[in-house]
Amino acid sequence: MTVTEQDKIFMQQALDLALKGRYSTKPNPAVGCVLVRDHVVLAEGWHQKAGQPHAERVALANAAAQGVDVKGATAYVTLEPCSHHGRTPPCADGLIEAKVSRVVIGMLDPNPLVAGQGVQRLEAAGIEVLVGVLAEQAEALNCGFLQRMRDGLPYVRVKIAASLDGRTAMADGTSQWITGAQARLEVHKMRAQAGAVIIGIGTVLMDDPSMTVRLTTQQLNELGLSSEGVHPLRVVLDPHLSMPLQAKMLQLPGRTILMTSKESVESNPAMVEQLLAQRAEIVAVAAQDDRLDIESILHYLADEEQINDVMVETGAVAAGAFVESGYVNEIHAFIAPLLMGHQARPMFELPSVQQMADKLSFTIQQMDKLGDDIRLILTAKKTIRSDNHLPSD
Amino acid sequence: MTVTEQDKIFMQQALDLALKGRYSTKPNPAVGCVLVRDHVVLAEGWHQKAGQPHAERVALANAAAQGVDVKGATAYVTLEPCSHHGRTPPCADGLIEAKVSRVVIGMLDPNPLVAGQGVQRLEAAGIEVLVGVLAEQAEALNCGFLQRMRDGLPYVRVKIAASLDGRTAMADGTSQWITGAQARLEVHKMRAQAGAVIIGIGTVLMDDPSMTVRLTTQQLNELGLSSEGVHPLRVVLDPHLSMPLQAKMLQLPGRTILMTSKESVESNPAMVEQLLAQRAEIVAVAAQDDRLDIESILHYLADEEQINDVMVETGAVAAGAFVESGYVNEIHAFIAPLLMGHQARPMFELPSVQQMADKLSFTIQQMDKLGDDIRLILTAKKTIRSDNHLPSD
Repeated sequence: MTVTEQDKIFMQQALDLALKGRYSTKPNPAVGCVLVRDHVVLAEGWHQKAGQPHAERVALANAAAQGVDVKGATAYVTLEPCSHHGRTPPCADGLIEAKVSRVVIGMLDPNPLVAGQGVQRLEAAGIEVLVGVLAEQAEALNCGFLQRMRDGLPYVRVKIAASLDGRTAMADGTSQWITGAQARLEVHKMRAQAGAVIIGIGTVLMDDPSMTVRLTTQQLNELGLSSEGVHPLRVVLDPHLSMPLQAKMLQLPGRTILMTSKESVESNPAMVEQLLAQRAEIVAVAAQDDRLDIESILHYLADEEQINDVMVETGAVAAGAFVESGYVNEIHAFIAPLLMGHQARPMFELPSVQQMADKLSFTIQQMDKLGDDIRLILTAKKTIRSDNHLPSD
Repeated sequence: MTVTEQDKIFMQQALDLALKGRYSTKPNPAVGCVLVRDHVVLAEGWHQKAGQPHAERVALANAAAQGVDVKGATAYVTLEPCSHHGRTPPCADGLIEAKVSRVVIGMLDPNPLVAGQGVQRLEAAGIEVLVGVLAEQAEALNCGFLQRMRDGLPYVRVKIAASLDGRTAMADGTSQWITGAQARLEVHKMRAQAGAVIIGIGTVLMDDPSMTVRLTTQQLNELGLSSEGVHPLRVVLDPHLSMPLQAKMLQLPGRTILMTSKESVESNPAMVEQLLAQRAEIVAVAAQDDRLDIESILHYLADEEQINDVMVETGAVAAGAFVESGYVNEIHAFIAPLLMGHQARPMFELPSVQQMADKLSFTIQQMDKLGDDIRLILTAKKTIRSDNHLPSD
């Protein structure tokens, strides 16, 4: 069976629908579905939120609500229909019951609960199935979910705001308003998309940040979000449990996890109790001396918290360690047309880069102008290192 | 008299013609001319090279060669026609003799030898004159020439090639191939456009660069250049006359000026003689101790060498001093998607930038992708400082 231009057009439409859910479906993937017969769209659907119906079920319900029989139709779905009973019944069954005759799928779902079984179920029911239409876009749409399913790791984006000469703060630590309002808006959208935001304890001690999504109700609505429950999990790298009990983020909506070592937990029972009383959660990850292991942190977030997308907003030392580790997928660099000079603070501390051969290479994926600033999205050429402990703070 | 859409269309055509000469007319401005009657282009012309006919004369000659009488035509000229006898007779007279009835001019020529007299001459002959059509583009086309005429200063472009984290070389000085072939090609085009290239003696001592325009004959032809005489004047900041007699650039075609202090010249007569014997030229500019004055260097280049456009290719210290001085018009930043780390060398040393309030602000004028790299062209918000001596080397 070959892919027609028509297949691509309707799959694009399904992808556009899926996109509407990309801020709101976590930990689920964003999925879109279009039901078509004789070149006419009968109904559309997209997955909006975990616990609510999947895209296929929404499209079928929309058709039914309009009194449209979808028998013999082609269903375009961006991700393989599910085959398992979760919070909702399997979508493959829904399509079979509705008697569609053909299903065109963007890509297979690597979720071990699906992983080809959705396709098998459809084919067993005599439905023609075509997989891999606009697969690259389907992949990009859910890169976080897919990486978590395949590798048990979240997709990691490092955000930096810097001057043209690569500086993130003056020597005295001042860094307010390097970039303008449009760049800051994009940062808050990144947070709204991320399942978790990682910061260092140093930033907490110095700036007492709230790490919330500061978007207006209207801006949230445009992203398909309501103002409640939008805040990503706050993850503080806190090897010595130095978190102040009065830290602003502990008073705010949303959860805060302190990533620390077993030793710190065991040697500070009183502190642990006080922090827990302040609604902080404490997680002990693998550590070497007081250096937390990046891989453990990321696996914990994927496995225990179902985090698809992590945003790293630490300072230069931890951000450098993440970049050096090889676990970073993208750098989002917001560059202001400023010069802050050689005495200002560096973008990343990269102790392992000594010679030209050690330099870290990326690919420029996207380049936009945001007000007076620019944003560069760089993708990493991933090479995971063997030792990936964060420097001690 | 109002500007019609037609006027803009033909002026744009004249600007496009002028553009062909932008690499080759120095120290003259690039100028284009289109002769139009009854909405039909009769002939075109553009200035190609100093000493050769001006755009108006070329257009008139082209018309004559085709046997076309331009009587009653409108002449579109990007810059005010000249009124003085230079190497060629006044263009205003040429238009008057050809009996054109209307002249539309992009902008007045600030050259004191013209400065409105071209317009007066035309009007005195009863020709209708309209000035200021697409003036902004006419201005941008010859920003170097215009700045030299108005302020006695060349237009200064600082070129830097750096990593995303703002580093230009590793700690050991290694810097080869930060950016790729497309970015390097643009650098050579910048050199081909510049009248002079400024480098520091430190770079000469370390790298022994040739500072030539390395473009193929075909690439040169595309810029309207022949392979001879394309090399910009090499200007070496050499306060102590440390130039090696065997420096590669002294053996190459083109001129090399060593900018130094009166003290150095007077105290090293033997060295001066040896350098002059190696075809180096020596210019003493104002200096404080061994710190050369940037303004003196730039005035010398404008006044004595008729340099419209200067390209600064020094290291971080001198480039930083130029940027801090306020005499820089543009920064051309070629950024490679690399991280070189906090131990690598900075883009600019800016000793005067200590606090956030001291930061230097620019405007992003242009942003392109060049192969794997990007180029940002930033324009400075010019504020000239009172003390503008280069640091001692």
